[in-house]
Amino acid sequence: MTDTSTNMNQTTEKQHLRIPGTPDMASPAAIDNPKADLAALDMLERHLFAHRYATSGITTYNATIDPPKAAADSGEAMAILEQEDHELLCSEATGALLSRLASHSELLTETQKAQVRILQRDRDALVNVPAEEEAAFTRLITEAYDVWRRAKTSNNWGMFAPYLDRIVASMKTIATFKDPDKDPYDVWLDEHEHGMSRAFYDTFFSQVKDVVVPLLADVIASGKQPSRRMFQGKFDAQRQWALSQDLMKLEGLDMDAMLLLKTEHPFSNALTTNYGFIATHIHEDDVLSNVYSMLHEGGHALYELNVNPAYNYISLKGGTSMGMHEGQSRFFENYVGRSEEYAPTLYRALKKHFPGQMNRATARQLYLAANRAEPGLIRTEADELTYPLHIIIRYEIEQLLMSGEATAADVPKLWAEKYQSYLGVRVPDDAHGALQDVHWSQGSIGYFPTYALGSAFGAQLRAAMIAQGVEFSRHLSEGNLAPIRDWLRTNVWWFGRSKDADQIIKDATGEAFSAHFFTDYLVEKYTSIYGL
Amino acid sequence: MTDTSTNMNQTTEKQHLRIPGTPDMASPAAIDNPKADLAALDMLERHLFAHRYATSGITTYNATIDPPKAAADSGEAMAILEQEDHELLCSEATGALLSRLASHSELLTETQKAQVRILQRDRDALVNVPAEEEAAFTRLITEAYDVWRRAKTSNNWGMFAPYLDRIVASMKTIATFKDPDKDPYDVWLDEHEHGMSRAFYDTFFSQVKDVVVPLLADVIASGKQPSRRMFQGKFDAQRQWALSQDLMKLEGLDMDAMLLLKTEHPFSNALTTNYGFIATHIHEDDVLSNVYSMLHEGGHALYELNVNPAYNYISLKGGTSMGMHEGQSRFFENYVGRSEEYAPTLYRALKKHFPGQMNRATARQLYLAANRAEPGLIRTEADELTYPLHIIIRYEIEQLLMSGEATAADVPKLWAEKYQSYLGVRVPDDAHGALQDVHWSQGSIGYFPTYALGSAFGAQLRAAMIAQGVEFSRHLSEGNLAPIRDWLRTNVWWFGRSKDADQIIKDATGEAFSAHFFTDYLVEKYTSIYGL
Repeated sequence: MTDTSTNMNQTTEKQHLRIPGTPDMASPAAIDNPKADLAALDMLERHLFAHRYATSGITTYNATIDPPKAAADSGEAMAILEQEDHELLCSEATGALLSRLASHSELLTETQKAQVRILQRDRDALVNVPAEEEAAFTRLITEAYDVWRRAKTSNNWGMFAPYLDRIVASMKTIATFKDPDKDPYDVWLDEHEHGMSRAFYDTFFSQVKDVVVPLLADVIASGKQPSRRMFQGKFDAQRQWALSQDLMKLEGLDMDAMLLLKTEHPFSNALTTNYGFIATHIHEDDVLSNVYSMLHEGGHALYELNVNPAYNYISLKGGTSMGMHEGQSRFFENYVGRSEEYAPTLYRALKKHFPGQMNRATARQLYLAANRAEPGLIRTEADELTYPLHIIIRYEIEQLLMSGEATAADVPKLWAEKYQSYLGVRVPDDAHGALQDVHWSQGSIGYFPTYALGSAFGAQLRAAMIAQGVEFSRHLSEGNLAPIRDWLRTNVWWFGRSKDADQIIKDATGEAFSAHFFTDYLVEKYTSIYGL
Repeated sequence: MTDTSTNMNQTTEKQHLRIPGTPDMASPAAIDNPKADLAALDMLERHLFAHRYATSGITTYNATIDPPKAAADSGEAMAILEQEDHELLCSEATGALLSRLASHSELLTETQKAQVRILQRDRDALVNVPAEEEAAFTRLITEAYDVWRRAKTSNNWGMFAPYLDRIVASMKTIATFKDPDKDPYDVWLDEHEHGMSRAFYDTFFSQVKDVVVPLLADVIASGKQPSRRMFQGKFDAQRQWALSQDLMKLEGLDMDAMLLLKTEHPFSNALTTNYGFIATHIHEDDVLSNVYSMLHEGGHALYELNVNPAYNYISLKGGTSMGMHEGQSRFFENYVGRSEEYAPTLYRALKKHFPGQMNRATARQLYLAANRAEPGLIRTEADELTYPLHIIIRYEIEQLLMSGEATAADVPKLWAEKYQSYLGVRVPDDAHGALQDVHWSQGSIGYFPTYALGSAFGAQLRAAMIAQGVEFSRHLSEGNLAPIRDWLRTNVWWFGRSKDADQIIKDATGEAFSAHFFTDYLVEKYTSIYGL
């Protein structure tokens, strides 16, 4: 396959291919023909839509239902489709078209202005990266995902390590193409969350750390720990599957537009507002993991399905940033799902599917069990308080990998040291250590920090909706999420990518982003639960 | 959506778009540059591969797992992708490239020669059909499929009829674009099976009818009917699902390359030799329907998965024709699955999943029950003897629709009359009548005849492998299909599209196609079962 790919790439250079939807280079007449330019914009968008629909689908099925032997071929198909999109966006003609449209903004609707802005940003992120580099990276991560999956199953870091080194090398090369003057890790932090950098995250994480570390110390010192006993034992996989579907309904997802699948690491995705995915995992010995994964992924899906449907076939489709997406998923996982007020609703859902096991439990016990703050090994099962520490560890290791101060071979040791030092836990093996997350195998270095940012976005949105009169507590008590969804739809979801995250926060909350809403929330919640 | 599509189509015409992979028009130098031409051929194939991978996947998921609201968006994405392929194949530059390569065939490998021949044939089938017509047709059948599904559920022919009329009108228009001098139905018969026509099928069907009609009369007159009682009752859906997977293994499918799904009308598909699909239906009151559907679709999947894997990314991928495909599916459904020798193996598979119910049954009873010749309403559940009559009815109605002698509104009456007259059965409603098959909703008019042709291909292949020393009967008795698969792989499957069906029959059997192998087989089998 390698030989053939090389041929293809050579041919690409030779032949100056044109992609469907690529506008013609403007003839002198076209400069004064904004109507033709708008038609070309529409055309460009429709081809990008079809490719996005295909590639998002292939990615999703690859991680859920595809048979094992399909990986190489699906990676090859993806690489070719992404190369087409790359050429389509990066052609000089597309650049010229977008510039002409941007300079005639008086002729554009608000939607068209946003399209031009977002397409220019997407183009800028790619235009200096050679298509072959991008295609090789796609093939690498497709293969790496498969290796990671097997490495995790067999608890074998050595199997995955060479792939991580190749991914880091490839991401550094790509970052240098994108912006040779910028630190490569900063390039990727900005890529995953527009406008962010190490300077921003260093400040944000230090504010969080200043609160979380002493608060966690007080929690442990209190000597109290709510019991999880009632929610342990064996919970039949098929009943958990049915429970998962009920949770989607409780959250208010349109079941005629959703597909529930199984995977290793839960995720959500959407092709349009009419087709969302949740991929969950079910462990018979841990029903709460499934419950909160579902609420989390359901928050992502609610965001995607409630974007203005007029954006389905254009580049404004979907959530505006990773951080804002995570703001919605953590909103439903934590601010809704782990609230004291919503616990009775979740308890009833559990009791419906596990009447025997839930008979002696109470909603209050569920609330406490789901909020036990306790240092642990697994990020996705961490409580709200320790969660940011898991992120900080990954953030620090990513910095070392990207700066060259460490290689993949060093990761298990770094991981063990940092988990010991920040969380006080001993890492028994790599499956419970650096192999637990899918992200690095997918080339998502720089992504983790957005998770912590998301919690902080969500906390600020929650404070704002309450300040604006949403009776948050009462609605949760009544199990009625509709008014909360309505506020989020109006203030966040509907805009898709037409508004950036910082602007959404400003417009929705009346002020710029601030970490204190998140830390205030943590202090209030854990002080109350642990009687500090 | 209609408005936007219109815009897109207008823009297409205006802008003379170029598709990725489209070769440049030859510069004078290129005429003497076969190396560049071969690179261009490779490039063309790789883009076609990526689009084929995407669209085959979308089609499959749409008929199985997609949520109901996804239909319109997936149809739109498909229409755009197919329009891209259409432009890619039909560009003048592609035509010129293929002509140059064809005229320099001394420089081509056997594979490249076949690629050029097949690409030219695919191009000829499209080149005169405007891309907009093709795209509109794709949108129509995507929508029509959804309507057909609901119409069948609600037993409402009137809901589907307008779509059938639109499909017929569209297929007549498209046929006229393809070949204005040919009868439109002949155009589609040839499209579904290269080289076939009404003249061919009229002869073939009359030979079959001459044998089947008197033979069926004798069967009925015999007054004997094997019992099906042992295989009736309630067969749990989940156990049937597990049985389906065991049947795939028994047939010899590579389970690491297969995905089993559920649908209304069973089908099979494959993206490459590494990713095949079977979509089956499970009715708790009819376990044998699932068994023989699985064997049938498994035959299709065996063919696809055993094509030369070197063809995965080029146009020689997959089965060579509908008829040859059906030859393989009916081979495993009937010549293997309904043989007396293989019955004990199938019986053991049934007994494993339904030990209680199978306890009092025997393999001999299974053989007889699966071969009861009896006029019925449902094509997919017909026995081998009456099956061709179901096809002849559809063939005759298609002729009337395509010639304009009938419209969709006339179909239920025609259907009832012909079922009464040829099979002696009364059609109670459209769900058990003209709504039973998915084909017309998918624009597959002219496809049905290939089913009957497939049985005849299969019979001739069976006779040839026995003549060439394959101990067919013994291998079946031992439940060992490997030698049979090996013969079919070597003589049929491996060639993919590189060899036409008539050539495969000639090379594999040493003579041209003849219907007598099929009719001889039927006479021998039913004479024996019914003691005629």
